[in-house]
Amino acid sequence: MDASAQVERPRRGRRPGPTETRHTVLAAARIRFARDGYASATIRKIAADAGVDASLIMQLFQSKEALFAEVMSITPSALALFAEAFRGPRVRIGERVTRAFFEIWEGDPLNSEPLLAMLRGATTTEQATRQLREFIEARLLTEVRLELPDDGTAQLRVGLASSMLVGVMFGRRLVQVPTLAQTNTDTLVALIAPAVQTILAGG
Amino acid sequence: MDASAQVERPRRGRRPGPTETRHTVLAAARIRFARDGYASATIRKIAADAGVDASLIMQLFQSKEALFAEVMSITPSALALFAEAFRGPRVRIGERVTRAFFEIWEGDPLNSEPLLAMLRGATTTEQATRQLREFIEARLLTEVRLELPDDGTAQLRVGLASSMLVGVMFGRRLVQVPTLAQTNTDTLVALIAPAVQTILAGG
Repeated sequence: MDASAQVERPRRGRRPGPTETRHTVLAAARIRFARDGYASATIRKIAADAGVDASLIMQLFQSKEALFAEVMSITPSALALFAEAFRGPRVRIGERVTRAFFEIWEGDPLNSEPLLAMLRGATTTEQATRQLREFIEARLLTEVRLELPDDGTAQLRVGLASSMLVGVMFGRRLVQVPTLAQTNTDTLVALIAPAVQTILAGG
Repeated sequence: MDASAQVERPRRGRRPGPTETRHTVLAAARIRFARDGYASATIRKIAADAGVDASLIMQLFQSKEALFAEVMSITPSALALFAEAFRGPRVRIGERVTRAFFEIWEGDPLNSEPLLAMLRGATTTEQATRQLREFIEARLLTEVRLELPDDGTAQLRVGLASSMLVGVMFGRRLVQVPTLAQTNTDTLVALIAPAVQTILAGG
């Protein structure tokens, strides 16, 4: 059974409501992203799989990135917080990004729990690893813009800062090393922010 | 069948050679560390499980930490490189630690492959996670000494620097984000070292 056969089923019978359509699109997107990868999976293809108009998908999810974020369980609000932190002046960017990161990973469970699940599952299947790799490269590293004159290292700097912060969460939330897990957020941010500042803005 | 029954078997028949004894001790240690955790598993208990003298274990593995490192597949040479990098003057400690980290994770496969396997498996079973947590807390964070006047944050600083570097390896080696994976080691060290310096020595 191919993806379109699988996800078109809800169209039979009564006309689907908005929630049902949303689920249908997400199911189609999940299969399409997993099969083709982020770059090749187009809204047009996903729309065809789901049996809806591409314009309806844009209306429901705003963009391909936001749709993928939802499929990968990174909530749009988490993405917005992260992108916002990278914007703006160089001064205190380390603190803004570090605080946003803790807010996303330790605040609203709607944002943090899917991220923890993703981190936990990131290396268990080649497919999940590939999806995460493509998402980070295509979405985070290309679209999160450092407002700095770019010497060619801006994308790398965003990647390093993000992966270092993920490493802290790995030790604190997943492995739960006592020294990291028992320290309060403000102390951690105070120690980490200058290092992130150094990575992002060279000090 | 309990641990001692399982690992005493090689004693029957001919007297075991050194390699065989080593394997017997490692098997006993693996079971004992997994069952009791790092802190409670003593050399004496492991010796009893393996049916050998405690002094023979010390002769073969030097210390309980080195034995656990071998069980956890962190090679003694990797541990020595890491501990060495933290020693010495505050100036350039960030570069020493960052370089040592890359040397351990990307140099000799005998050091790096078991670490990658450990990182991959770290969150798959509660037992492996618990072992890793205890190892990091009891061995790395307590014994890797920062030669700095300690304001009470030294252990936390070592933990943060280590977890940030693990995060970089997570993105580079496991998820293989192209931006991180395709950058050469020297460029990465040049960007990361000042951040690690900031974490360890406050800049």
